[in-house]
Amino acid sequence: MANRRILGIDPGSKVTGYGIVELTDKARVCYIASGCIRSGSGAFMVRLGEIYRGVVAVIDEYEPSELAIEDVFVSKNVASALKLGQAKGVAIAAAISRDLPTFEYSPRKVKKSLVGNGSASKGQVQHMVKAILSLQKSPPTDASDALAIGICHVNTSHS
Amino acid sequence: MANRRILGIDPGSKVTGYGIVELTDKARVCYIASGCIRSGSGAFMVRLGEIYRGVVAVIDEYEPSELAIEDVFVSKNVASALKLGQAKGVAIAAAISRDLPTFEYSPRKVKKSLVGNGSASKGQVQHMVKAILSLQKSPPTDASDALAIGICHVNTSHS
Repeated sequence: MANRRILGIDPGSKVTGYGIVELTDKARVCYIASGCIRSGSGAFMVRLGEIYRGVVAVIDEYEPSELAIEDVFVSKNVASALKLGQAKGVAIAAAISRDLPTFEYSPRKVKKSLVGNGSASKGQVQHMVKAILSLQKSPPTDASDALAIGICHVNTSHS
Repeated sequence: MANRRILGIDPGSKVTGYGIVELTDKARVCYIASGCIRSGSGAFMVRLGEIYRGVVAVIDEYEPSELAIEDVFVSKNVASALKLGQAKGVAIAAAISRDLPTFEYSPRKVKKSLVGNGSASKGQVQHMVKAILSLQKSPPTDASDALAIGICHVNTSHS
């Protein structure tokens, strides 16, 4: 069976983190790539275009088989929730346009999966991402969060 | 110059209304088509897929040159705002994927453009949609709202 390759996405209207991990046939999780799509501070419609095209470009370059995305359910207020929802929506649409099945995980579920504690700190999650993927140093926060979502999906769907 | 054809979208996580109007070279607004994409009551990710593919299908069938979409800024609560934002995001992504420029109009702006009063009732807007497009009867609410957004865009960008 071909290795499973997961694209994790940490959605945001200004910065969208992405991280790609692969589950090898030896049941090891390997780091493939990670980074941030910076959609800047211009008109919101332009930013949505940057996010959509950015995620499509990542999918076309790394050819993941699945998308895992954070199920955000809290936000400062209704206006910021509508913006974050749209940013997340265009990222999901990029996956739909490439026929990738999409899975959602709450921040609590991601923390529990990596650290064993749903209330773990961001620092603890970053530490585990670095350890699990045998990285020399921690990727930037948004990329690290995206890798964590990808690892959580591997753990959840593999077991 | 070719006629301008506008796709109006009234986004929703269960029903997405669409309406296509055309501005002819005689500066008349003509009705082309309207309808509803029903994304059902299944898993939210499945519904987002229905909306994205539904809007792409409408674009590919009617080949509009622009998208006009409602700029929703109120919602019952943060959770419903996140859902509505995602539904709107995948609809916008469908337009981005087909390189359509996208414009947003607040409900108040749409009402003012059609009825001359930003506090007009839904019934007054429906009445004006029917009159402007010389329709025999009013389309269903979601389709009528989408046509209203399309007409508002024609009025705003033409004058």
